[in-house]
Amino acid sequence: MLYEGKAKQVFATDCDHVVMVHYKDDATAGDGAKKGTISGKGVVNNRLSNAFMKRLNEKMIPTHYIEEINDRDTFVEKLDIIPLEVIVRNVSAGSFAKRMGVEEGIEFSEPIFELSYKNDDLHDPFINDDYAVALGIANRLELREIHDFSMQVNDYLKKWLDEVGIRLIDFKLEYGYTPDHVLTLGDEISPDTCRFWDKETGKHLDKDLFRRGLGGESEAYKEVMARLLG
Amino acid sequence: MLYEGKAKQVFATDCDHVVMVHYKDDATAGDGAKKGTISGKGVVNNRLSNAFMKRLNEKMIPTHYIEEINDRDTFVEKLDIIPLEVIVRNVSAGSFAKRMGVEEGIEFSEPIFELSYKNDDLHDPFINDDYAVALGIANRLELREIHDFSMQVNDYLKKWLDEVGIRLIDFKLEYGYTPDHVLTLGDEISPDTCRFWDKETGKHLDKDLFRRGLGGESEAYKEVMARLLG
Repeated sequence: MLYEGKAKQVFATDCDHVVMVHYKDDATAGDGAKKGTISGKGVVNNRLSNAFMKRLNEKMIPTHYIEEINDRDTFVEKLDIIPLEVIVRNVSAGSFAKRMGVEEGIEFSEPIFELSYKNDDLHDPFINDDYAVALGIANRLELREIHDFSMQVNDYLKKWLDEVGIRLIDFKLEYGYTPDHVLTLGDEISPDTCRFWDKETGKHLDKDLFRRGLGGESEAYKEVMARLLG
Repeated sequence: MLYEGKAKQVFATDCDHVVMVHYKDDATAGDGAKKGTISGKGVVNNRLSNAFMKRLNEKMIPTHYIEEINDRDTFVEKLDIIPLEVIVRNVSAGSFAKRMGVEEGIEFSEPIFELSYKNDDLHDPFINDDYAVALGIANRLELREIHDFSMQVNDYLKKWLDEVGIRLIDFKLEYGYTPDHVLTLGDEISPDTCRFWDKETGKHLDKDLFRRGLGGESEAYKEVMARLLG
């Protein structure tokens, strides 16, 4: 095992540039303050994230996805991760709504793109492009590429989710470089890292059910998978 | 009186588009947690800010400065203030150093430009351009103009301060519109709103002396004025 995170374990493989990701049911929220499990989450996140990334690969957006091994394990390319959390927001919710003093559910005329510096000790502070450049995290060209990729990911995800009655509120992406220096989408795309609302009822279909103690998270995760993967 | 802030009072005048600003010695820090006075601060900030703005006007950067009435009172153009705090950073210090986990005093290869949403209830949250657009605070063109003006202000202030042995670490600007919709620099440029360090000794010559309880703030303010205005 190379690394254990809150929701995943990463293992080395026989191949230098490939790692195996194992998805757990463990969940945390509130910067680690709340801990628990969401039954079946690992299966949903593994299968959903792989399905999204496979489709993105087909759309010429490079992702780290290689091959699904089983319900919880997947081979992905080993990336040199850029310590940025990229957040794309289509609708006000969560920390945005709280920090800006607006209600949740306001649709933005254009998506909001934001960056956090991925650093546990500093609690992933909100930064901007100038910060990233000054701190040597990324240069202007890389930031432009990350922005453009993220906007494309947003367009595709919105479309695919809309087809199954789900509204994409916001989501987090992480990028890295392959050994041959190709900027590549890493991490996962799942109800852990996205906000999904049912298009008709507005019902949460994501980790907010767990974060806010609303209940039904296990069923909601499975419902998203059923709608998207049949 | 139209408005009373932490450090200033604003009065109506006979002329609709002109207000009178009165500079007080009152000082607050830490989002209002610390209160006190800095003897003579009102005089220094009034005279310094006016001197800077007069020079900026001559460089074709529109400021609200009209005329100094006396040591503490000045006529300025009445602005429709844009609720943004613009911060320009040349060197790491203050909240930047704290949030990003770096030491103070690191010179950036290019200035950092950042925005906060000016809102007391929300404690002036850090935002980016996309936030400002989404919230209807400013459009892209206005943000571009504000950025470019601020970079010019930085270049001039750095030069003028360097000539008297002072290093410009960072500063805050506020902008607004005149009744005929000219984007104009408002508020003040002073040791309350800038970080000044002595070029040789690194000594603070600004409000950090008060914020951090280091003492000597009244003398430091007067020294900055003496160096710049003789």
